[in-house]
Amino acid sequence: MKQLFSCVFKISRRFTGAILGDLNRRTIHLSVPCICNSKNQKKLFGKKLQHMVQMMALTDPEIEKILQPFRQQVKEQGDLVRKLKTEKAPELDVARAVADLKHRKHALEAKELELAPKDLFDRAKLEDLLKQKFFVDQSFAIYGGINGLYDFGPMGCAVKANLLQLWRNFFVLEEQMLEVDCSMLTPETVLKASGHLERFQDYMVKDLKTGECFRADHLIEAQLEKLATDKKINQEKKEEIRRLLAMIDGFSKDDMGQTIKQYNMKSPITGNDLSEPMEFNLMFATSIGPTGHIKGFLRPETAQGIFVNFKRLLEFNQGKLPFAAAQIGNAFRNEISPRAGLIRVREFTMAEIEHFCDPSNKDHPKFENVADLNLTLYSGCNQMEGKPAEVKRLGDAVKEGLICNETLGYFLGRIYLFMMRVGIDPKKLRFRQHMSNEMAHYAKDCWDCECKTSYGWIECIGCADRSCYDLMAHTKATGIKLVAERKLAEHRTEDVVECQPQMKVLGKSFKKEAKIVSEYLSKLEVSEIEQIEQKIKDNGEVEVTVNSQTFKVTADMVIIKRYQKKLHVEEIVPSVIEPSFGIGRVMYSVFEHNFKMREGDEQRTYLSLPAEIAPYKCSVLPLSGNKEFHLLVKELSKALTMHDISHKVDDSSGSIGRRYARTDQISIPYGITIDFDSLKSPYTATLRERDSTKQVRAPVEELPRIVQDLSIGRRTWDDILNNYPLFEQQEATKDK
Amino acid sequence: MKQLFSCVFKISRRFTGAILGDLNRRTIHLSVPCICNSKNQKKLFGKKLQHMVQMMALTDPEIEKILQPFRQQVKEQGDLVRKLKTEKAPELDVARAVADLKHRKHALEAKELELAPKDLFDRAKLEDLLKQKFFVDQSFAIYGGINGLYDFGPMGCAVKANLLQLWRNFFVLEEQMLEVDCSMLTPETVLKASGHLERFQDYMVKDLKTGECFRADHLIEAQLEKLATDKKINQEKKEEIRRLLAMIDGFSKDDMGQTIKQYNMKSPITGNDLSEPMEFNLMFATSIGPTGHIKGFLRPETAQGIFVNFKRLLEFNQGKLPFAAAQIGNAFRNEISPRAGLIRVREFTMAEIEHFCDPSNKDHPKFENVADLNLTLYSGCNQMEGKPAEVKRLGDAVKEGLICNETLGYFLGRIYLFMMRVGIDPKKLRFRQHMSNEMAHYAKDCWDCECKTSYGWIECIGCADRSCYDLMAHTKATGIKLVAERKLAEHRTEDVVECQPQMKVLGKSFKKEAKIVSEYLSKLEVSEIEQIEQKIKDNGEVEVTVNSQTFKVTADMVIIKRYQKKLHVEEIVPSVIEPSFGIGRVMYSVFEHNFKMREGDEQRTYLSLPAEIAPYKCSVLPLSGNKEFHLLVKELSKALTMHDISHKVDDSSGSIGRRYARTDQISIPYGITIDFDSLKSPYTATLRERDSTKQVRAPVEELPRIVQDLSIGRRTWDDILNNYPLFEQQEATKDK
Repeated sequence: MKQLFSCVFKISRRFTGAILGDLNRRTIHLSVPCICNSKNQKKLFGKKLQHMVQMMALTDPEIEKILQPFRQQVKEQGDLVRKLKTEKAPELDVARAVADLKHRKHALEAKELELAPKDLFDRAKLEDLLKQKFFVDQSFAIYGGINGLYDFGPMGCAVKANLLQLWRNFFVLEEQMLEVDCSMLTPETVLKASGHLERFQDYMVKDLKTGECFRADHLIEAQLEKLATDKKINQEKKEEIRRLLAMIDGFSKDDMGQTIKQYNMKSPITGNDLSEPMEFNLMFATSIGPTGHIKGFLRPETAQGIFVNFKRLLEFNQGKLPFAAAQIGNAFRNEISPRAGLIRVREFTMAEIEHFCDPSNKDHPKFENVADLNLTLYSGCNQMEGKPAEVKRLGDAVKEGLICNETLGYFLGRIYLFMMRVGIDPKKLRFRQHMSNEMAHYAKDCWDCECKTSYGWIECIGCADRSCYDLMAHTKATGIKLVAERKLAEHRTEDVVECQPQMKVLGKSFKKEAKIVSEYLSKLEVSEIEQIEQKIKDNGEVEVTVNSQTFKVTADMVIIKRYQKKLHVEEIVPSVIEPSFGIGRVMYSVFEHNFKMREGDEQRTYLSLPAEIAPYKCSVLPLSGNKEFHLLVKELSKALTMHDISHKVDDSSGSIGRRYARTDQISIPYGITIDFDSLKSPYTATLRERDSTKQVRAPVEELPRIVQDLSIGRRTWDDILNNYPLFEQQEATKDK
Repeated sequence: MKQLFSCVFKISRRFTGAILGDLNRRTIHLSVPCICNSKNQKKLFGKKLQHMVQMMALTDPEIEKILQPFRQQVKEQGDLVRKLKTEKAPELDVARAVADLKHRKHALEAKELELAPKDLFDRAKLEDLLKQKFFVDQSFAIYGGINGLYDFGPMGCAVKANLLQLWRNFFVLEEQMLEVDCSMLTPETVLKASGHLERFQDYMVKDLKTGECFRADHLIEAQLEKLATDKKINQEKKEEIRRLLAMIDGFSKDDMGQTIKQYNMKSPITGNDLSEPMEFNLMFATSIGPTGHIKGFLRPETAQGIFVNFKRLLEFNQGKLPFAAAQIGNAFRNEISPRAGLIRVREFTMAEIEHFCDPSNKDHPKFENVADLNLTLYSGCNQMEGKPAEVKRLGDAVKEGLICNETLGYFLGRIYLFMMRVGIDPKKLRFRQHMSNEMAHYAKDCWDCECKTSYGWIECIGCADRSCYDLMAHTKATGIKLVAERKLAEHRTEDVVECQPQMKVLGKSFKKEAKIVSEYLSKLEVSEIEQIEQKIKDNGEVEVTVNSQTFKVTADMVIIKRYQKKLHVEEIVPSVIEPSFGIGRVMYSVFEHNFKMREGDEQRTYLSLPAEIAPYKCSVLPLSGNKEFHLLVKELSKALTMHDISHKVDDSSGSIGRRYARTDQISIPYGITIDFDSLKSPYTATLRERDSTKQVRAPVEELPRIVQDLSIGRRTWDDILNNYPLFEQQEATKDK
């Protein structure tokens, strides 16, 4: 089990930063199984009891008593890290102290999860449902499948499409963002500039005989943890192992190699010897074009497509800041050994927003709309001090400076609202701030939206203030300024030195080459112009080299001009606030949080997805196979399609109860049953709601509009209950 | 110019077929420029004249007179091909005759296009608009760009998203198709089975010094055509060149190498020597996982993801035929030297449908809904005989057997309706049937939906009856039966021979291995069972090899049973009808067909996209920057968002006329102008329609609903004109 959990990692992997960038990637969210294995246990927990226990949650004084020493451990180490930093201790000492701090934090979190009330959730059952109803399954299964690749079947694909459409309306339309759709194939130069080529990597070791690969840090950790519980090992050795375990996050390649040798580690599968650790870049490499000269990769994130288009987007926005661009699309990571199902995959859909703003003004005009939201915030400070997450008013968190600006705060609020809309359980959602130690050096502040699942707390969305890092990196690589203009309150004067080539004279001397010499001269920097000026003054001429040719430039060929320029604007490199959604992880969390069993019948599992993202909005179930029924079903189906309502007709001969169960499994929120009363005037049918299983009777012709209104949230089910007569017949009694 | 046109190729490239599969890929749609270059020419052609000339089109007797000899040439060669086939002439002779036929066809088509009335269309202007307003532009431009890769900017991305949403509603929802979303990364084994590994390739030659690559057939063709017009070359030689040109489509690797040598062809760029032609597979290769053992490719089409999931999809459909699956997603082709802008790219979005049906019944229940449509059909027969395309009632075309079944016909009709909905000009759309010579051997019938653009006729959508080829190919590779069951009218009896392993006895002898031996024995084919039975009869035992181990099986270990089974169903391999959309090509054609200039002002270009796919539905233009205006705009913007209407506020200080022109350029169909009357009760504003530039005045509070109704086609503009007072003020007079 440990193995499964230990690989639930952070999705955010842009490591273009400093030393800590690499540490960043290795934050492990340890967790303990939240799965109920005993049948009795499940029966013991009624729905109400479950709710009560959840409410008790982490504030139970008994639980707090057990957690206290863990919290103390974290706090001590947090204090040490702060002290070392204040004293400007050697970098290595700080890094080791931070690594130990993280380990203590994980121990605390593991204990918290262990003590938290168990859900009635059964992951195997959910996975069964997702596979059986073809929400999602392994890709190329008839060819044996490929790890880390999944196909969405009709149900999963519909949920995903609905979720993305909602995302588009919720973010792109609402904020008038500029959505783009960029190439996945990306040339090496771009990813070199962004830092992915150098830093987007893991270390791996190979089984020397079979060639099988393992992630080096995973392997070392697993084997050390096994040793730590070995009875044959003495206390002193165990202490050493504990120290090593605390430091794995900060291990260099050599550290890893040494540990593997020292503990004589072997392949966990064959027992064969292992290779030295080697770097493995996680990007899928390919070659663009037939020559093999253009090396390319599949993009590891969608963000870079936005950054390289910054100039055009700014122009499109008529040069004005702030504006946001967004992109939905696939990204790829060649994981060394992907496990943990849908959480850790090699090809996945992201939805990223890059909000560009003036670095000196990160206020947001709509912040007040979200200021009153109460969010569960797990601040860096609380993490350092071993304290739990806290519920805080968003407005206060920004005011206090805990969240570093309004724009970042606004997006956290919008993310929260979006997650509620798609069906995430608010009790299983938190925003975790990156501690200053794990944040890339260029980031100002970073919060992960994490969902609690049976894999522990997993990061679903990252939200960071990345300052001007990315635009600067591409400017540096291309020489093209990625800047915006800011109006100056008062104009400023600037001294200008210009070299003006005299084309006529140049033309006479250099003929065809005159143009390139002229271009060269007009692009010189001030210091270069002054050098040339001096040399001409001293020698009457100067030699310049353009395209490996040398030209003698004489005094009559250039005029050096000096003047003052009035500046009304200044150039600034915009800051970037980046909310980045891992769509697959959001979906998986939604599935877990909405997986239910009917009271008293654990075999009748279903998904209580919000209507907006449910794959079909409505089922149509005729009680008989008569021709009259068939005609009515056809009519109704046509009317539903006219109302853009995706629906499923189930005219199989199964009992109505069994058919309801089947539609519940694919999360259809509303069901229309055509019975014998539907054939007589006034033509009516029953409408059933999935979660309450309550039914009303309504005129057939009104049903398409009712379902449409319910599906897009224009009416509530309570409203329907108040306006149409309840249909009391029990589901069970309808069974043939 | 020729070079640009010669690379407008067919999108369909699944060459899993026989020899002809390869020919298939090389169908060149030659064309001549339809671009007006002279300013005078443009002025001469008024809108009405243009329309008149279009109506004359190809039925003009003068034009027909010129075309007659070209038609005759095609007919003669078509007759020859038929004759050779009837006489079962050697394959090579047929192939050469077919190649010549194609060349004659292209000559006819080129002449037709040359004589057709010129559009007032100016491609450079359209490209300018698309780039300037960031509909689309080259990817990674700040890094110098990569050929064949394009980014969709905010406007292009919105059009694409709208187009795909419409596609989803029009096909997936309407037909209740099963939409899937499969991995792009595809292991080699899958693409080997589908035939792509072997056949998805072009021949290329390299510049021996610079390493630059060229498509061999393109290069040879271009150089031969240049020679053919060379005055220094005598008539005899020209005749030889003409013969060669006619046969390029059928050239083998050796033919190409020989021609290059014989004519001493060099690199068209450097004049350097060229390499021998070599195969180049068009798939982007990569490696999945860290070991490098799993070779993979980026999928060259989305269809294979559906085929490999056939079993699950059939199950999801409760085992019933027919059903259709669909997929929208990106595919990749590593073109040797992509040109022709958006028509020929390396990464593109496809939308594919695989309709699975009983091969013995390809009727379609909804065919009657489209039977009365009149489509322009360019049949294989007419192509063979040099005749033009004909307008035909779809119902008649199916009845006559021209279109081989109702399902194929139904999709052609639906494709036509879809293309009309997204704004394709019906006069510039035709369905071209593949001639029996160009069709893959397994395909029953194949029609391309082609759009006429400045690149000539380009294939945007393929629609083929692929029979059972794909499912068979994957069954062959995996051993997994991809079949459906068909109820038998009468039950059938079948003789069964079964080998029943006796586990108890096996267990005693083989212990742990008993299970694999038992599995092996129970899976034997009838002939194998009979062999084993015979050997046991002869020798009392038989040796079998399982997993390289040998086991002695004795008489007591198996019971051979013979009995008769009643069969109520039989297994069938479904046929596949495949409509396959190249989304980028459809979009490009829509752009060309909707690119307009305002009468009398050729600088005022705009795009008349249907509201449904326009990037924004509505603009909001305040006439003043006063605070009161600002508040009203904010309110209106909020109301529009509430109605899911994407809109753009332009509160810049430009004149209203200039702002209208700007919104026309990005194809915004409706514009709300807030003027001083909007601030007084009764609060009203003007609503302008893009194409007619007519305006009405309506209450501000009604506007969001009006625009919504117009955008989704619930109301027409004429209806609005009838219900609200016309606002007569001229656009020009509003200019400040």
